[in-house]
Amino acid sequence: MSTLTTREEDYSQWYNDLVLKGGLADYSAVRGCMVIKPYGFALWENMRDVLDRMFKDTGHQNAYFPLFVPKSLFEAEEKNAEGFAKECAIVTHYRLKTDPSNQGKLIVDPEAKLEEELIVRPTSEAIIWSTYKKWIQSYRDLPILINQWANVVRWEMRTRLFLRTAEFLWQEGHTAHATREEAIEETEKMLDVYATFAEEYMAMPVIRGIKTANERFAGAEETYCIEALMQDGKALQAGTSHFLGQNFAKAFDVKFADKENKMEYVWATSWGVSTRLIGALVMAHSDDQGLVLPPKIAPLQVVIVPIFNKDAEARQKIDDKAKELILELRAKGIRVKYDSDETTRAGWKFAEYELQGVPARIALGARDMENNVAEVARRDTKEKLSLSLDGLSNNIERLLEDIQNNMFNRALEFREKKTLRIDNWDEFVKALDETPGFISAHWDGTAETEEKIKELTKATIRCIPLDSKEESGSCILTGKPSKQRVLFARAY
Amino acid sequence: MSTLTTREEDYSQWYNDLVLKGGLADYSAVRGCMVIKPYGFALWENMRDVLDRMFKDTGHQNAYFPLFVPKSLFEAEEKNAEGFAKECAIVTHYRLKTDPSNQGKLIVDPEAKLEEELIVRPTSEAIIWSTYKKWIQSYRDLPILINQWANVVRWEMRTRLFLRTAEFLWQEGHTAHATREEAIEETEKMLDVYATFAEEYMAMPVIRGIKTANERFAGAEETYCIEALMQDGKALQAGTSHFLGQNFAKAFDVKFADKENKMEYVWATSWGVSTRLIGALVMAHSDDQGLVLPPKIAPLQVVIVPIFNKDAEARQKIDDKAKELILELRAKGIRVKYDSDETTRAGWKFAEYELQGVPARIALGARDMENNVAEVARRDTKEKLSLSLDGLSNNIERLLEDIQNNMFNRALEFREKKTLRIDNWDEFVKALDETPGFISAHWDGTAETEEKIKELTKATIRCIPLDSKEESGSCILTGKPSKQRVLFARAY
Repeated sequence: MSTLTTREEDYSQWYNDLVLKGGLADYSAVRGCMVIKPYGFALWENMRDVLDRMFKDTGHQNAYFPLFVPKSLFEAEEKNAEGFAKECAIVTHYRLKTDPSNQGKLIVDPEAKLEEELIVRPTSEAIIWSTYKKWIQSYRDLPILINQWANVVRWEMRTRLFLRTAEFLWQEGHTAHATREEAIEETEKMLDVYATFAEEYMAMPVIRGIKTANERFAGAEETYCIEALMQDGKALQAGTSHFLGQNFAKAFDVKFADKENKMEYVWATSWGVSTRLIGALVMAHSDDQGLVLPPKIAPLQVVIVPIFNKDAEARQKIDDKAKELILELRAKGIRVKYDSDETTRAGWKFAEYELQGVPARIALGARDMENNVAEVARRDTKEKLSLSLDGLSNNIERLLEDIQNNMFNRALEFREKKTLRIDNWDEFVKALDETPGFISAHWDGTAETEEKIKELTKATIRCIPLDSKEESGSCILTGKPSKQRVLFARAY
Repeated sequence: MSTLTTREEDYSQWYNDLVLKGGLADYSAVRGCMVIKPYGFALWENMRDVLDRMFKDTGHQNAYFPLFVPKSLFEAEEKNAEGFAKECAIVTHYRLKTDPSNQGKLIVDPEAKLEEELIVRPTSEAIIWSTYKKWIQSYRDLPILINQWANVVRWEMRTRLFLRTAEFLWQEGHTAHATREEAIEETEKMLDVYATFAEEYMAMPVIRGIKTANERFAGAEETYCIEALMQDGKALQAGTSHFLGQNFAKAFDVKFADKENKMEYVWATSWGVSTRLIGALVMAHSDDQGLVLPPKIAPLQVVIVPIFNKDAEARQKIDDKAKELILELRAKGIRVKYDSDETTRAGWKFAEYELQGVPARIALGARDMENNVAEVARRDTKEKLSLSLDGLSNNIERLLEDIQNNMFNRALEFREKKTLRIDNWDEFVKALDETPGFISAHWDGTAETEEKIKELTKATIRCIPLDSKEESGSCILTGKPSKQRVLFARAY
């Protein structure tokens, strides 16, 4: 096993090391696109399954819309089009042919040019609202509560594994409602789903808030977000939920007859989280030994490693105990693996499973077993416990719960420590460099000031927290009056 | 509810009616691409979940590879490239800009031309084998058993909902092995998985066979397939499993050190089924009243429809009974819905759930309840049964099993009736027009004869069945000697 870069040496390299060596993802032959490896994909599957259940429990259904958006539809909602035009992959032809000057090579067949170019979806509002137009005539057709699991493409210039890739996997909910109030309620409900998921499953505390106009989704009237804090003190936007008003209904002329038979434009929301969450998960919890994954979504929750010696009888006992334990743990729904591979040493395995962030490790050795105990190591604190073999599976179950809670509490404590209330510009600038984290500060409410602060410090307004209280103050930069604090940070 | 075209009137229109009005899919604004609607997607999710479990139980893991294939990789395996070159979507640019002659409209930015064109994957062998090259050094890295759930694009000129669409959803397994034998074993194992799935879950009997060289996957050494028979007597290829030999390993130079430290090319397989299976499902079982879905994968297995009258007390009793039944059925893992909507009549609901192919319907009426019975209708035979309310949920559970078995047996009987052994050319031609189905006939083994038969009759060799016995005979067209029968049919 190769050594990992530490966070202190080079945070960014540490992150890449963990993603690559931890088996989550790999670079691909396509610029900016990654390969999600089996271990990383198993993690995504667990996250997806929990979210999918939460979406269905809140009344949503899955569907699937085309990958391509014809250019004329793409440009229909102007702000949305403007927001994505500069970073989209465009299909212009539908056939290759043999290169006449070089047999065995292919060239684009110039005769197979599409009449209308197709945009590879960077987001699906356009293609979906052009479809909703066919499905919505009356208030009886509303609400439409649809989610889609899909790949999308945004031609980012600088990419990072999981955090910013040209292609990524996500879910996008697209709902249609009869009233403004109902659409806003939906937007807020889905933000809550995301926050609950981040906190209860990813063990990652988040701030719920609203974006400033500058940072709003292109085409939205209001963008709600959840913001998390990474270990280097930078913020990461972990999910967004947009109230789209009637913008898309107007762009695609989607009206419905209300109960009084009056024609009205439909109200819309959209909301999404992506494989970016895996990047957030890595950076929120991991350490210099590797990944630290929260039990609820870890692909593997427990690994049992036998410490074999040469005594055949002792080996058999260890083997039997391991198999018994596996059955007990599986009966509790715990994802467990017994690694009895004899070609690698136990110490190597310990390091490997630490790198992979497996929450709990049980080592079964002959001497321990004679004393009726096993050595259990928890990944989050790296503590080693000597636990009785009696009732071990129950204790492991409790241990996993404890690890889940501890990871959340630790991350919360970290965030609280790294969230400063600052009322002075010099301190603001200094804090960003010296004690990076969230800064709660007053802002005069103008886009100009927001831009200026970004220019001067690279910090952006992450959100106006939903629980932010009214409080008179003066803008951190201009000194102009402000009614509430907003949350600043440098961000991914 | 609009009326459906019958199979006799127009089979092809009947199919489209069922897909559209049954709520499975809709046309989209993109040429050849469809929208999979919530009901159709729920069906796909059920099919996907069963297959995914079967793949995992046979040792496979999921992963995700890029949507795009750089042209230079795409053309590396020549036969594969040649096979797909004529039908692929090609990304040539990565940015749009405002049309200088028409503000508000966008045009492709000519300055954002890609150095190398990207092919939207029609299949992923190329991108995956270019990645496996990095992952495989030694025999210890083998086998690699990976599956991917993904969207692919093949620019088909004539499209049909589910059966042939420009974009479709599928899974593609891509495995790498140290020996030829192991790769062939894998190819056959996955064919078995597909056949088991088709027969046990889709209630659709299939013939396991091998494709002729003409019909082989581009780049494969051998293509195994499962073939099903639709109600109009046309065959449908429902899944394929390819033994790829060392073709991709050679194209991408993927070698491994074997136990003697000798460098060898890696052996490969790939295998896939797609949303096309939904088309097969519709055409295998449905009738002139609508879809008929097999219970094991039906999104909704049971619907309870109350027959309300004006007596409030009777209504309450019906309501209570329905809720009790739901709990009992859900406890058995049965997917059930209680449709108490009072804005539509029971008769309308009956027709709607018949159209949607819900396997069993329970009508709860006051008079029946006084007699301690409920009227149960099974969708497959349209029989109505009067069943006692005592132990009803147990009887419904058994009924669902019976429906599943009956659907399979009925389809099997149909296929047997429609499979003819023919040894005479005139009868062969006549049968294709008058009693369409599978024809088991002798063939001289040459591609020329196969082509000629296709030209003359539009029938193709669907497969050489795996259980086909050696038998001397003469070719149905040329009279030349033949050693075994093959299976002909016109096909989707």
